[in-house]
Amino acid sequence: MKPTEIVIIGLGVGGFIAAKTAKKTNRNARITIIDEKKYDMFSACGLPFAMEGIISDFDELIHSMPTEKMDMVKLPYHKAISIDNENKIVTALDIDSNTTKPVPYDSVIIATGSKPFVPPIPGAHELLNKGVFVINDLENAKQIVDYSKSISSAVVVGAGAIGLEVGVALAQNNIEVTVIEMLPHAFPKAIDPDIAKILERSLKESGIKLMMGAAVEKITGDEKVTSITVNSKTIPVDMVIMASGVHANWDLAKDAGCELGNWGIRTNAKMETSIPGIYAIGDCVETVSLINHKPWMSQLSTTAYRQGITAGTNAAGGYDTFSGSLTTFVSVIGKMEVAATGFNKFFANTAGYKVVIGKASGLTKPEWYPGAKEITIKVLADASTGRIIGGQGIGEEGVAARVNLISLAIKGGMNLHDLYEAELAYCPAVSEAYDPVSKACEFAIRKMK
Amino acid sequence: MKPTEIVIIGLGVGGFIAAKTAKKTNRNARITIIDEKKYDMFSACGLPFAMEGIISDFDELIHSMPTEKMDMVKLPYHKAISIDNENKIVTALDIDSNTTKPVPYDSVIIATGSKPFVPPIPGAHELLNKGVFVINDLENAKQIVDYSKSISSAVVVGAGAIGLEVGVALAQNNIEVTVIEMLPHAFPKAIDPDIAKILERSLKESGIKLMMGAAVEKITGDEKVTSITVNSKTIPVDMVIMASGVHANWDLAKDAGCELGNWGIRTNAKMETSIPGIYAIGDCVETVSLINHKPWMSQLSTTAYRQGITAGTNAAGGYDTFSGSLTTFVSVIGKMEVAATGFNKFFANTAGYKVVIGKASGLTKPEWYPGAKEITIKVLADASTGRIIGGQGIGEEGVAARVNLISLAIKGGMNLHDLYEAELAYCPAVSEAYDPVSKACEFAIRKMK
Repeated sequence: MKPTEIVIIGLGVGGFIAAKTAKKTNRNARITIIDEKKYDMFSACGLPFAMEGIISDFDELIHSMPTEKMDMVKLPYHKAISIDNENKIVTALDIDSNTTKPVPYDSVIIATGSKPFVPPIPGAHELLNKGVFVINDLENAKQIVDYSKSISSAVVVGAGAIGLEVGVALAQNNIEVTVIEMLPHAFPKAIDPDIAKILERSLKESGIKLMMGAAVEKITGDEKVTSITVNSKTIPVDMVIMASGVHANWDLAKDAGCELGNWGIRTNAKMETSIPGIYAIGDCVETVSLINHKPWMSQLSTTAYRQGITAGTNAAGGYDTFSGSLTTFVSVIGKMEVAATGFNKFFANTAGYKVVIGKASGLTKPEWYPGAKEITIKVLADASTGRIIGGQGIGEEGVAARVNLISLAIKGGMNLHDLYEAELAYCPAVSEAYDPVSKACEFAIRKMK
Repeated sequence: MKPTEIVIIGLGVGGFIAAKTAKKTNRNARITIIDEKKYDMFSACGLPFAMEGIISDFDELIHSMPTEKMDMVKLPYHKAISIDNENKIVTALDIDSNTTKPVPYDSVIIATGSKPFVPPIPGAHELLNKGVFVINDLENAKQIVDYSKSISSAVVVGAGAIGLEVGVALAQNNIEVTVIEMLPHAFPKAIDPDIAKILERSLKESGIKLMMGAAVEKITGDEKVTSITVNSKTIPVDMVIMASGVHANWDLAKDAGCELGNWGIRTNAKMETSIPGIYAIGDCVETVSLINHKPWMSQLSTTAYRQGITAGTNAAGGYDTFSGSLTTFVSVIGKMEVAATGFNKFFANTAGYKVVIGKASGLTKPEWYPGAKEITIKVLADASTGRIIGGQGIGEEGVAARVNLISLAIKGGMNLHDLYEAELAYCPAVSEAYDPVSKACEFAIRKMK
């Protein structure tokens, strides 16, 4: 294939895979990666586990990319400040020297990720890094760990994966933790209240306080945070972690004239933006739901990975598509594995589905086998056709494995019967003869009659 | 629904579920269960783990069935000796009193299971229970454990699940174990030689000797076994476990005039034999392969369970079908979890498929997360269409979970791309961002180009 200049902006999982795939697609591709970090990549999903101490050193999360060996150019500690599509030039600012350099391109892949959203709560912005922290990179994760060494209490705002994982990490390090969530339950966008209840019970048992459906009104302190006001009640606190979601980092794309969706940069299935030759992937883009093919956000590492393959292939002259996402995820919150895929009941109803639900609790192994753990699996289907549109689970083990089956069933357009009849492997040391996934489907099928 | 008399012959998992389902389908069904055992049910798949000591007591494997509460009649320690279909009567022999009683029926469900096959090796039959043992019930499992207390060496004939699980159990109890298999590798009917190699290496590391592709010629001893002759070499040994497969227990069905297949009682998708009103389920029947819909054996607990639901429903006046099996299984052999579904390469080729294979090794978690284990996953597809027809895996954890995905993909008629694109949940504490299943599919897809 003939040489082509590809500029990749942002070195996360998406940018990395895009670069690798582009080179595999066209070994004559000339690839330049512009990234704001001083180091190469880091595994963001590992941060809470490093904070907790399960991973002994933050440095283990850093991975360097052998760009020279891969025949690529890397501009670390550089910020892409503009994309001039008329002249096909990205301008990169060398943060160290504060000088700019032009980088010519045939294609650009925007992989600028997301940034933590700090809500407009009085005190939140003022006290940022003075006891109020966000968490999205190694620096602020380390900062939190350092700060937490001399304190005794923390509030986490937001009961999503990051908030809860960090909450558990702090609690493990003997800090009194309160998690505050504006919506009525944990993981409000991914799971249903009944599954959240099981998680909340487990969190309470491990000493974490929860305030669900609670609004933060004010964060107070001079030099540093001293209290937080929630539902008109002021609570003294030493640290506040803002984990109330992330926003697509889309400024660069916006300035370049790329069309934006409600929550992220809009692309087609080739991951190309409204401007031909400019691709976008990962946390900064809006994708579509695989269920109803309407706009959907999927700010997951796995999504960035797949989108990276697609954009990398296309930018290098190949052809690949990314069809959308189910936001299949798993999170480990203390002892509990929580996973979900597709629509939860709220999203299903909002999208116009009348749903039939099957929920089953069961053991991961026969009750007579040592180490059997209870798990609860829930499957959601379209009540008129039985087509599966969502799944959730919680338990001490084996939850992701079962939610993955539901995810594959949704992908394959399967209905409840198809998944119910799935032939699953049984051995007492590993599984039960009649799996909770099958049981959940059986219960849902019965409701359809 | 109107009353109907159902006789179930054999109280294993199939018979139990058939009874339960029949009662659920028609609460006016009058159900009689005839079973040869003195106790109710036991979990056969748990025997090797009880022998090993993981399950502390054999009695934990015994489960009693509340037949009275379930409004059923149970005839334990009774043997069904004939089915007179003209007069609709099963004759049951009371083993204790050696008297017979007629049991009238509208439908019969034959769930007589299988019996261990003892090959015609000189000495094998003569020395049975004198150091030569089969293993298929609590009694002989206990006998083996008792016998093994005073010995130092054992040979297991047959490297399938039972043979290997029992071999590991004996080795754990400090007995020098040699496993002999006539075919060239372990699990010859389920996995391919390369996957078997990984298992064999692990077995050797744990001190178990293996003789693959080896023929047992003779078993010698007077009062009890003293040696075994394999490939013209005589090895002194204290015990021989015959685990070279099981045969369908079909005599009763044969005598009643039911049509037989090559390996088991033939049934239709309703699990009804060639004689209307007589059903058969579990280890004693021949099913069809879900891949090519040709006769296939699936002597698995999970298959018996599903067939029991079908036969129980139909016998009670409902309607249900069982469409066939992929023989999805998992076995835990020492540290290793081995699982497979669908055709292995040998069966695929025999069935006329030209296969494309993708094999990938990877970690169950990121390498920087503590406790990551290596697993190897293999996917087999029809080379002309990419339709998935088989899968195998081996590793210390998470193997069944991945083989279950392949099983579901086969069931859903998916091709390599469909499974490759499956959206699997990622969290470093649970999984890798790019799963070995996806990688195996990617490798197979590349070979198709």
